[in-house]
Amino acid sequence: MVFEPFEKVALIGLGLIGSSLSHVMRREKLARTIAGHSRSAETRDRALELGLADSMHESAADAVCDADLVFLCVPVGACGAVAEAISKSLKPGAIVTDVGSVKSAVIRDVSPHIPGNVHFVPGHPIAGTEYSGPDSGFASLFENRWCILTPLAGSDEQPIARLTAFWQACGSSVDIMDPDHHDRVLSITSHLPQLIAFNIVTTAADLEEVTQREVIKYSAGGFRDFTRLAASDPTMWRDVFLNNRKAVLELLGRFSEDLSALQRAIRWGDGGMLFDTFDRARGIRKRIIEAGQDTEKPDFGRGAQGQDQKVMVKRPEEP
Amino acid sequence: MVFEPFEKVALIGLGLIGSSLSHVMRREKLARTIAGHSRSAETRDRALELGLADSMHESAADAVCDADLVFLCVPVGACGAVAEAISKSLKPGAIVTDVGSVKSAVIRDVSPHIPGNVHFVPGHPIAGTEYSGPDSGFASLFENRWCILTPLAGSDEQPIARLTAFWQACGSSVDIMDPDHHDRVLSITSHLPQLIAFNIVTTAADLEEVTQREVIKYSAGGFRDFTRLAASDPTMWRDVFLNNRKAVLELLGRFSEDLSALQRAIRWGDGGMLFDTFDRARGIRKRIIEAGQDTEKPDFGRGAQGQDQKVMVKRPEEP
Repeated sequence: MVFEPFEKVALIGLGLIGSSLSHVMRREKLARTIAGHSRSAETRDRALELGLADSMHESAADAVCDADLVFLCVPVGACGAVAEAISKSLKPGAIVTDVGSVKSAVIRDVSPHIPGNVHFVPGHPIAGTEYSGPDSGFASLFENRWCILTPLAGSDEQPIARLTAFWQACGSSVDIMDPDHHDRVLSITSHLPQLIAFNIVTTAADLEEVTQREVIKYSAGGFRDFTRLAASDPTMWRDVFLNNRKAVLELLGRFSEDLSALQRAIRWGDGGMLFDTFDRARGIRKRIIEAGQDTEKPDFGRGAQGQDQKVMVKRPEEP
Repeated sequence: MVFEPFEKVALIGLGLIGSSLSHVMRREKLARTIAGHSRSAETRDRALELGLADSMHESAADAVCDADLVFLCVPVGACGAVAEAISKSLKPGAIVTDVGSVKSAVIRDVSPHIPGNVHFVPGHPIAGTEYSGPDSGFASLFENRWCILTPLAGSDEQPIARLTAFWQACGSSVDIMDPDHHDRVLSITSHLPQLIAFNIVTTAADLEEVTQREVIKYSAGGFRDFTRLAASDPTMWRDVFLNNRKAVLELLGRFSEDLSALQRAIRWGDGGMLFDTFDRARGIRKRIIEAGQDTEKPDFGRGAQGQDQKVMVKRPEEP
């Protein structure tokens, strides 16, 4: 199926997601012109050097002028202010979307600024790496990944279908979801793991008896898997936690309860409880591989060293 | 430097570590003969089929007969019983070592059974994958990894030097450490991360509002990094926690305190505290890459998909 390209796409924010969108739009010819905006002069210069946009604008409003598709690729806490800034410059009939990890708060902040003749279709590509900035993007970031759209009640079908086709052209599969449900799902699949990763690295850094040098040197035992997540952009994550407070706090309560039960089993030597918990956890991994969301290549966060096992990569499908 | 091979090596246990030791000993010609023991008839048959040992024995005592080097590759909780079983069959002058993730408890359980004319040198290769069993081993598992030896006070130097040379011939770098200190270091670099991974998967499995199908489908946001660790052998890990109780409980107390502080910052909207914590955590990742303990390849647990960035693999060195 051939995708009819957008005449002009505006990228508000040229970080990992914005720059990756540029790369895949160039490769798949999804946009005839790309305009970009970044608050940082350095990022604007670098984006032009890298050819990420045909024009870079100091003002977000200038960037969205005449754009048929506008991507908000800024931390979720900044979406409201950006929407306000571009509100009067949006082209009638344009589609505005975003890529944030939280949907209800973005809808709350952005919707009031979207004119009646513009279509707002919130979105979230479940894809990323631990890197950020205009140099971190690559065209295949969205391949074999899910993108969740959370359209508002009563939205037109046509812009949703057009944005769905866009993400499919980027290599993603698209799901439609209620925004509150999205925020609950992501709180467990992404936000809590991220918080735990930040926390364990903090705990390690504060130890008196074990040096940071030792923590780093012997990190192959599992710790380094957490540090990879903990290397992600702090501003982006601060905004996620401030804007998905309720779901994250509810989940933290459950996590801490479960951890206390394990702690008690360790203290009292209840090997049966430990074995049963660990054995049960093992099963879910197998299902993630079966669902094509990871490979079965053996790894403890080792990177690509010395492993000659066959790597299976599948398209995402229903688990 | 040419390594003078051992005449006979006995592998007690043919799981991930035992079978990997066999592969690397074959490849590097570190042993003229390999004898093996497993309690499971199925594993004994499979080990012979795979050529992991020249002979497989139903009795551990039979396997160690005439062996110059004996590897205990069983869960740490089983080391004491194995040591008792082989005690009378050990060859005078032989070296007995182990590969367990806990050292003080293994020394407590094994030492009493080692005859005065046999050298016990406890060891721990910091290497692994999430797989287990005789089919999971591969020769390069120990390459570019650290192996920690925790010799007992007053041990002869010669067997320590010989075992050091053995691990170097497997591709590892060797460190000497006090057993209690080893257990504290590993509690943060390996045992706590592992417990947290098991716990978060358990928390996810118990949710009512988010289905397991959704957790699996959208796991690319960070969750799947944890499931990889959580797929590890439950028996091995049960024994680690039962045998490194004090260090793990101390660390869990700190971890929970730190997590409560983050939780409070989320509840009260303290973005500054969140940013500072996340920003600080980011730095440690950079140092792990610099120390050669992981690659800088961008990854969110994505496996080998669509990444053309250069992969740096360095020999381990002092961070």
